[in-house]
Amino acid sequence: MTGVDLNADLGEGFGIWHLTEDDALLEIVSSANVACGFHAGDPSVLRRVTASAAERGVTVGAQVAYRDLAGFGRRFIDVPPDELANDVLYQIGALDAFARVAGTRVGYVKPHGALYNAIVSNAEQAAAVVEAVRMFDPSLPVLGLPGSEWLRQAEKAGLRPVREAFADRAYTPSGTLVSRREPGAVIHDADEVVRRCVRMAVEGVVVAVDGSEVKVEPESICLHGDTPGAVEIGRRVRAALVEAGVSVRSFA
Amino acid sequence: MTGVDLNADLGEGFGIWHLTEDDALLEIVSSANVACGFHAGDPSVLRRVTASAAERGVTVGAQVAYRDLAGFGRRFIDVPPDELANDVLYQIGALDAFARVAGTRVGYVKPHGALYNAIVSNAEQAAAVVEAVRMFDPSLPVLGLPGSEWLRQAEKAGLRPVREAFADRAYTPSGTLVSRREPGAVIHDADEVVRRCVRMAVEGVVVAVDGSEVKVEPESICLHGDTPGAVEIGRRVRAALVEAGVSVRSFA
Amino acid sequence: MTGVDLNADLGEGFGIWHLTEDDALLEIVSSANVACGFHAGDPSVLRRVTASAAERGVTVGAQVAYRDLAGFGRRFIDVPPDELANDVLYQIGALDAFARVAGTRVGYVKPHGALYNAIVSNAEQAAAVVEAVRMFDPSLPVLGLPGSEWLRQAEKAGLRPVREAFADRAYTPSGTLVSRREPGAVIHDADEVVRRCVRMAVEGVVVAVDGSEVKVEPESICLHGDTPGAVEIGRRVRAALVEAGVSVRSFA
Amino acid sequence: MTGVDLNADLGEGFGIWHLTEDDALLEIVSSANVACGFHAGDPSVLRRVTASAAERGVTVGAQVAYRDLAGFGRRFIDVPPDELANDVLYQIGALDAFARVAGTRVGYVKPHGALYNAIVSNAEQAAAVVEAVRMFDPSLPVLGLPGSEWLRQAEKAGLRPVREAFADRAYTPSGTLVSRREPGAVIHDADEVVRRCVRMAVEGVVVAVDGSEVKVEPESICLHGDTPGAVEIGRRVRAALVEAGVSVRSFA
Repeated sequence: MTGVDLNADLGEGFGIWHLTEDDALLEIVSSANVACGFHAGDPSVLRRVTASAAERGVTVGAQVAYRDLAGFGRRFIDVPPDELANDVLYQIGALDAFARVAGTRVGYVKPHGALYNAIVSNAEQAAAVVEAVRMFDPSLPVLGLPGSEWLRQAEKAGLRPVREAFADRAYTPSGTLVSRREPGAVIHDADEVVRRCVRMAVEGVVVAVDGSEVKVEPESICLHGDTPGAVEIGRRVRAALVEAGVSVRSFA
Repeated sequence: MTGVDLNADLGEGFGIWHLTEDDALLEIVSSANVACGFHAGDPSVLRRVTASAAERGVTVGAQVAYRDLAGFGRRFIDVPPDELANDVLYQIGALDAFARVAGTRVGYVKPHGALYNAIVSNAEQAAAVVEAVRMFDPSLPVLGLPGSEWLRQAEKAGLRPVREAFADRAYTPSGTLVSRREPGAVIHDADEVVRRCVRMAVEGVVVAVDGSEVKVEPESICLHGDTPGAVEIGRRVRAALVEAGVSVRSFA
Repeated sequence: MTGVDLNADLGEGFGIWHLTEDDALLEIVSSANVACGFHAGDPSVLRRVTASAAERGVTVGAQVAYRDLAGFGRRFIDVPPDELANDVLYQIGALDAFARVAGTRVGYVKPHGALYNAIVSNAEQAAAVVEAVRMFDPSLPVLGLPGSEWLRQAEKAGLRPVREAFADRAYTPSGTLVSRREPGAVIHDADEVVRRCVRMAVEGVVVAVDGSEVKVEPESICLHGDTPGAVEIGRRVRAALVEAGVSVRSFA
Repeated sequence: MTGVDLNADLGEGFGIWHLTEDDALLEIVSSANVACGFHAGDPSVLRRVTASAAERGVTVGAQVAYRDLAGFGRRFIDVPPDELANDVLYQIGALDAFARVAGTRVGYVKPHGALYNAIVSNAEQAAAVVEAVRMFDPSLPVLGLPGSEWLRQAEKAGLRPVREAFADRAYTPSGTLVSRREPGAVIHDADEVVRRCVRMAVEGVVVAVDGSEVKVEPESICLHGDTPGAVEIGRRVRAALVEAGVSVRSFA
């Protein structure tokens, strides 16, 4: 039976502030990208989200980021690679303490925001994040964009790369994401999002902006947790996958 | 053969700023209280200090603190106990990642600054720190002031309490420290500091401000790392202990 | 014609996170307590809120706080008075730059959260905040609880103290607030809140928890901006005041 | 009589940490680039440095930076321009409060570190910083590299651009600085530094790495405050300028 993982960003509050509907999303996803404190996620958020995820059997992933609360990790920072590796190691270690207290462990690593985007092509920063994961635990899978520097270097370093596709993002014919600065980059129609997810999971293809079919073969599909209606769309995606005979399960 | 542990606060820089002479002190102590990022210690500092400590066989301890870079963790913060427990767990987990990369593990926990002082008597915060250590690893020893709420609760929770004395602090007849706000609280005469350390280690006593002898029986003696001449005094203390037949060794 | 000021905490977001419905509340209040960056309020929030307030003729106040984003300024911090004075001065200065760009100036100072509570009785910290305001501009009014150390010292230093009452808080017979830890501390019934506000403004009294009448004579009434239904209650309070012949106007 | 300004970065400590020898440097320079809290400089540092500078008649400048304590403002951050303008405005306003308390005002603006470097060519960020200064006070001079986007846009916006040269940096034949990544970028020989400063001030030229003479005509010369021997070199530069008949005086 075919299976696919569903992942979403969770635990993206800080102190009094909340962003993601953590409990509702944990009923939908099989992998939780948990913020580790650098772009969001104070220690009490980490505690709650890891406990909730573990209870539901959802895999806990470290959503590592630049140190940037004010910018929510969405601004590129030219961090020297050795410092970046240490920043990432710190975040994974902190989250892992909460995962262990919840009876589980950090099960994978997925960079967040500007760091995710940077290491699609920035080889030095990609190497730094790979090095941090490898030092912490070389058996950890890493989530990222197919064809990225990040997944290429991870594989070369002996880490397991996990190909990810996006539920609500438009693709170019070459399989990259349409930039958010261009119109149509994000697909808002829920029916369309559901259809695309099923097709990506069953056939491994997605229709690009020019109408051509692109092979993506995702092992995991990323649902956005911070958009209006995110929970409702997530529920529909999950139900449609199950109905199409696709089991929603962690890649780990 | 008699033995005693020597501990000092290390890794108390942040970014461009430095405070403690980490490498020199690591030649002297058997236990390194490493700052974990909340009062000092960015991830690259943690990396360097844990690596240096591990190379020299010095035990790495988690010097956990209030979240307070601006105040260097020296200001009491009325953190709700459940949040404090999570803050402490976060710090231990982050440091442990670096300890493991260096081939060791966090070997004990010692609270820093205002938190150290608060949990001498603040039962709720003491319980929170105990709970954090217990959740992370109930086999971890904890360092503190004899008679403190912190050590009492730690012992009750099944943690190993380790009694600590201070090399350069004056004592009251009842065995507590003379407040820093009073004259003579800190002993600046190096010869005097050396003599007191030897006597504490060999006979288990220290002379209080009124001339009486106080039983302290320390398992560990704390050297201050951020005072002028700290390294030189530390060297002399260590040499004098060895000459008196006291082996300097970790309690862990 | 009788008048009273309505104030509320605004601009309490940070980066991606939002808390207060700033624009809706600015239609209701005559004084905006704008977060200055230490407990909430990044510079872009300050820009937007001061511009919005100035457009509507709402007075901009500096809502100064302990440096504590993680705790939203709600945790007492034992900051040495000289440092606290500098922290407060920094916040007022930063906000004033935005106020001036918006064509106005900081019109008053109101401490936030744990600092507000601390200086009801903590004379040293009260003196520090008074000193900061006096240094910045001795003509600035300051908002606080009648009978507090803060207002007493402010008046003595030549600042104008402004008595504040709370729309939705229960009072003791002696005119202090019922602690939030006790049941009934916050009044949730909207009709009751409206009635109390009108009576405080018109007659200067509020009914305490024991049924007795307490003289409060507020120059300003504080509406809470971060409770569910805050905007709706605020609108009703304002409408009821106007209907009762009380003009809603800044004390400044 | 010829005159030139000497400037240096000051107040670059934070909390317990110190970096620059503020009082010694204030005896040398005519302009103090005071850190404003985003890369260094807590409010108590701002208080002390502005008071010291004002006492000595040294002009206080706002050394504005990216929000980056961990990286000391030395890492490029891709801050959206509108947010950057607000970040800069916040810093100038905060510093100005301390300057006023010290009996003076912010007298100019000089960006720090990675921001300084970015706006040599990054037109959007340069425009943002220009806009912040213009909004705060269009009569403020701004310090920067001749030929930079920053000075060009500042002039166009009606601000007064002030040309700056570096005492200890090597120049290319086209008048730009040799990158710090290349050998010889920083001149360590004190005699050589002194000679270059005198020649820059008297003749307006500096010898480039290829031996050619480059016209720099600085209105201000930047002394580095955080290098070993900085104070001693600064004293010698000042003495040599005076001896050469050049008066050291603020450009403001």
